[in-house]
Amino acid sequence: MNKEHATREENYSQWYNDIVIKADLAENSAVRGCMVIKPYGYAIWEKMQASLDKMFKDTGHVNAYFPLFIPKSFLSKEAAHIEGFAKECAVITHYRLKNDPNGKGVIVDPDAKLEEELIVRPTSETIIWSTYKGWIQSYRDLPLLINQWANVVRWEMRTRLFLRTAEFLWQEGHTAHATSQEAIEETERMLEVYADFAENFMAIPVIKGVKTANERFAGAIDTYCIEALMQDGKALQAGTSHFLGQNFAKAFDVKFTSKEGKLDHVWATSWGVSTRLIGALIMTHSDDKGLVLPPKLAPFQVVIVPIYRSDDEYQRVCDAGRAIKKDLERFGVSVKLDDRDTQKPGFKFAEHEFRGVPVRIAIGPRDLENGTVEVARRDTLEKEVLQITDLPTKIVHLLEHIQENLYTRALDFRTEKTHTADSWEEFTALLDGPGGFIHAHWDGTSETENKIKEMTKATIRCIPLGNKLEDGKCILTGNPSIQRVIFARSY
Amino acid sequence: MNKEHATREENYSQWYNDIVIKADLAENSAVRGCMVIKPYGYAIWEKMQASLDKMFKDTGHVNAYFPLFIPKSFLSKEAAHIEGFAKECAVITHYRLKNDPNGKGVIVDPDAKLEEELIVRPTSETIIWSTYKGWIQSYRDLPLLINQWANVVRWEMRTRLFLRTAEFLWQEGHTAHATSQEAIEETERMLEVYADFAENFMAIPVIKGVKTANERFAGAIDTYCIEALMQDGKALQAGTSHFLGQNFAKAFDVKFTSKEGKLDHVWATSWGVSTRLIGALIMTHSDDKGLVLPPKLAPFQVVIVPIYRSDDEYQRVCDAGRAIKKDLERFGVSVKLDDRDTQKPGFKFAEHEFRGVPVRIAIGPRDLENGTVEVARRDTLEKEVLQITDLPTKIVHLLEHIQENLYTRALDFRTEKTHTADSWEEFTALLDGPGGFIHAHWDGTSETENKIKEMTKATIRCIPLGNKLEDGKCILTGNPSIQRVIFARSY
Repeated sequence: MNKEHATREENYSQWYNDIVIKADLAENSAVRGCMVIKPYGYAIWEKMQASLDKMFKDTGHVNAYFPLFIPKSFLSKEAAHIEGFAKECAVITHYRLKNDPNGKGVIVDPDAKLEEELIVRPTSETIIWSTYKGWIQSYRDLPLLINQWANVVRWEMRTRLFLRTAEFLWQEGHTAHATSQEAIEETERMLEVYADFAENFMAIPVIKGVKTANERFAGAIDTYCIEALMQDGKALQAGTSHFLGQNFAKAFDVKFTSKEGKLDHVWATSWGVSTRLIGALIMTHSDDKGLVLPPKLAPFQVVIVPIYRSDDEYQRVCDAGRAIKKDLERFGVSVKLDDRDTQKPGFKFAEHEFRGVPVRIAIGPRDLENGTVEVARRDTLEKEVLQITDLPTKIVHLLEHIQENLYTRALDFRTEKTHTADSWEEFTALLDGPGGFIHAHWDGTSETENKIKEMTKATIRCIPLGNKLEDGKCILTGNPSIQRVIFARSY
Repeated sequence: MNKEHATREENYSQWYNDIVIKADLAENSAVRGCMVIKPYGYAIWEKMQASLDKMFKDTGHVNAYFPLFIPKSFLSKEAAHIEGFAKECAVITHYRLKNDPNGKGVIVDPDAKLEEELIVRPTSETIIWSTYKGWIQSYRDLPLLINQWANVVRWEMRTRLFLRTAEFLWQEGHTAHATSQEAIEETERMLEVYADFAENFMAIPVIKGVKTANERFAGAIDTYCIEALMQDGKALQAGTSHFLGQNFAKAFDVKFTSKEGKLDHVWATSWGVSTRLIGALIMTHSDDKGLVLPPKLAPFQVVIVPIYRSDDEYQRVCDAGRAIKKDLERFGVSVKLDDRDTQKPGFKFAEHEFRGVPVRIAIGPRDLENGTVEVARRDTLEKEVLQITDLPTKIVHLLEHIQENLYTRALDFRTEKTHTADSWEEFTALLDGPGGFIHAHWDGTSETENKIKEMTKATIRCIPLGNKLEDGKCILTGNPSIQRVIFARSY
């Protein structure tokens, strides 16, 4: 592992990139904008998937799979949707290559042109609602609570690993309901699931809110979101849940007969989180020594590093390490014994620290004599000597503490970086100073929001759920306002 | 559920299609050749994934994710590979749509043409080996044991749900090794994993063998396969494991320094199974009453159907059903209580039978008085009355029996449909009669193999591993042969 990497202070953006690359999470591929998710990064995604999938199933959802391709004409059926999504996408025009008659590799076969172009899905509302038309006739078919784990493609010009890539992995829930109220309840339920996941698994405090019209999903009536704050004071949208009203049901003519025999369009929601969450995870907890992972999402929670000089010592400490591993695994702790004999302990310490393994156990010949080991926690870098016999219960508690500590630390950071601005001067001074979330009055118009964005690059992250109403004056226009909203610069 | 469906006798192909559609496994989508995998079908795939993924990890593999797109030029780098795969594929030529100036929806933006076309991956050897070049320098980096769960696209002209679709889901393992021997061992190890999975989870007996040159994966030195026999006497290739030699390492210039300091190209394997397995599952076990699922892959193993007249009875039998469900779940049995009050028991019986639920428990008010339930098994359609108190252990055993019985039944069927042919007349009579696997002598040339295929549509499914050598004469040419190989018509 290359030890040279940037600090947050020196260059935040480089620091982020160094962690992604040098902790072996992901890298750019030969295909512009597409990333390779490396095994260590993918293992984090698998942990996220497993937890989320269980939460989806516990709330009554089932998984299914819909086509990767969307006929071009489908995208045009929902007017707002096409405006938001059709602009930058991968377009399939042909279905065959042939040998170049000039003998230089292969060329596109001009005879194999598709009658209608296909789009690689940027999101699946259109293909799914065209399918739901065949599945929904009666109120008995509702609600339909379906999720899909899939890859999607949005042709991004400026990409950053995990945060913004042309192809990314995600889940997208698409539900159908008999009433508007049921659909809104579903939208809110899934927002709660996302907030629960962010806070209790990722250890990231989030603000739950509703987007303004400007920031709404293309085709939604309302977009709910969870917003997190990164260490550079910029916000990151970590998940969205959309109430789609009857927009897609109308676009694809999906009607149902109610219990009372009335024919009506179906009500819809959609909601998703993506591999972007890994970016949020990195930027929330990591430090200048590298990645820091919350125990609940770490590919392995504990690494055991044997310390030895002779072959005989190697055998003995590795045996002890294997015994400890077994003991810990019995308590549900995931453990890796790093018994590579090609690397020295110092190298291993640095590597696992940089990769954010929550707990490191070092064990050498003297430890064996004393029945002890050295335990180091990644979040605070503190070390202590523990009795081997006490390990399982102590490690279980330590992992819980680390999980809690990461959350508390992130919450404290956010609290410190959350301010109130009552004037334009205050507002811009905060933005250019500490950054963070700024509670400020806004006159409620898209024009003002756009102007603020143009002038400062700050956007309204959300109107928090259960927001306190209070009279005030818009920080830009001075026009009357009924509540403060949350501004920030964002990813 | 529509009760009308074809029998195997009447129309085997229609029978298969009816099961896929009417058991709600999958359906054709609005996109030519692409299927929608419905929740019940996808739940089977999830079970397959979970079992396989565990087997891969138990044999030392980790998961990762590589780009969906492959630059056109990559495909040409391995000569045999491009011949096999480039012909029919989805080609991305543009990255933007724009509003039609004539106001009719959207059109492809001619200004957004890619410099080099991208191919939607038909398989990932090329993009993965171009990546491995950056990951492998030394013997310390080997072996690299990586698997990917992904969607792939092959532009098929004639598609059939699960068996042959343009887009399908699969896993593809791609490993890198320091020696030829290690790579061959890996190829064989993964074939064993597939055979184990087919036999012990899918309850499908398979023949392990090696493909002839004609049937080899494009770019492989050797293709190992597992071959299963369907109820219409046709073979189905259920999984392949390829020894790729140094072909891809040479194409992408991937070299490593050995322990001895020698520079050499890396040795490779790749191996995959796909959603096609669901097709194999259906065609192996199902009958004229619909789908039959082995307990280890059934989305739920037991369905409880309450029988009642009054609301009061409904409450009481549902309560009893819930108690039984809990008891069974404690023993690791997955159970669905079908407490819908919108459908009658007869409808539910037919539906669950058609959907292949391994065990049905019916419970009515009289049963409650007696402390009994009626238990029906899907494979033999036998019913028996059991004491509620005995249920957990009896059901656990019953599920094991069903799993075994399905395997034995399929094995008996295969044995019955396996023949030896010593002359061309025998060979063609068998093919046009019972079909099945035919052990016959072949002179070992591709020409003969091709001729036989042209004349009969039969192909050599494989040369079984550990095949007995025996002198004989080729059934077509009469030329000398050293062993019998397995012929069949196939999917």
